[in-house]
Amino acid sequence: MSLEKVNLADKFARFDFVKENATQQRIVGEVNDCYVKLSKFKGEFIWHQHENEDELFLIIKGKLTLRLRDKDIELKEGEFFIVPRGVEHLPIAEEEVHILLVEPKSTLNTGNIVGDRTVPVVERI
Amino acid sequence: MSLEKVNLADKFARFDFVKENATQQRIVGEVNDCYVKLSKFKGEFIWHQHENEDELFLIIKGKLTLRLRDKDIELKEGEFFIVPRGVEHLPIAEEEVHILLVEPKSTLNTGNIVGDRTVPVVERI
Repeated sequence: MSLEKVNLADKFARFDFVKENATQQRIVGEVNDCYVKLSKFKGEFIWHQHENEDELFLIIKGKLTLRLRDKDIELKEGEFFIVPRGVEHLPIAEEEVHILLVEPKSTLNTGNIVGDRTVPVVERI
Repeated sequence: MSLEKVNLADKFARFDFVKENATQQRIVGEVNDCYVKLSKFKGEFIWHQHENEDELFLIIKGKLTLRLRDKDIELKEGEFFIVPRGVEHLPIAEEEVHILLVEPKSTLNTGNIVGDRTVPVVERI
């Protein structure tokens, strides 16, 4: 339990975007059964879904497309989208995007598709 | 379940700050067992706590002081603080502040202090 505030810009400055098509995530808070995570991303991730978890994407900087099976959700700074559990989605970003995520602690970045892009343990900063 | 994105500025434009020392809140999303709420606030609220709910305050515009019993948390745009369950807090804003809240659906705005400033039903926009 932290009784310190979080400055988003400061936290984003503390980790780097590493490689395309992978997620770089850090945990920056716990609220109820959820983590607050920051993510830097560029490229095209993989189609996946989370069976039991809704996932909130709030864009802090840049643009993100969340491709769903029937439409694209185009997000820019100051916009959020909640991917409901069970809904397949594919994150796409042409340029590096900074995202705040709120999702249950049980959430794997690749959801139901466990493979070489799965990051089971996310570092706290 | 909404499959639409939320633009924070658009949503904040859809309701007004009404009077000092009261909370004006709207529900703009559901994520797991939580609501995402937007709040416009100015003045001094009341000391209260939430017995079973952590409460995330992310500042979208302006400044907010969260007074705790042992220190003040000073928040500005781009900063958040999570008030853990059971921690007494008093929100204070000299000027109107716009806040994004993430908190369990069961959360009352006045927590354990039910009175004339309690708003049991929050409108969705």
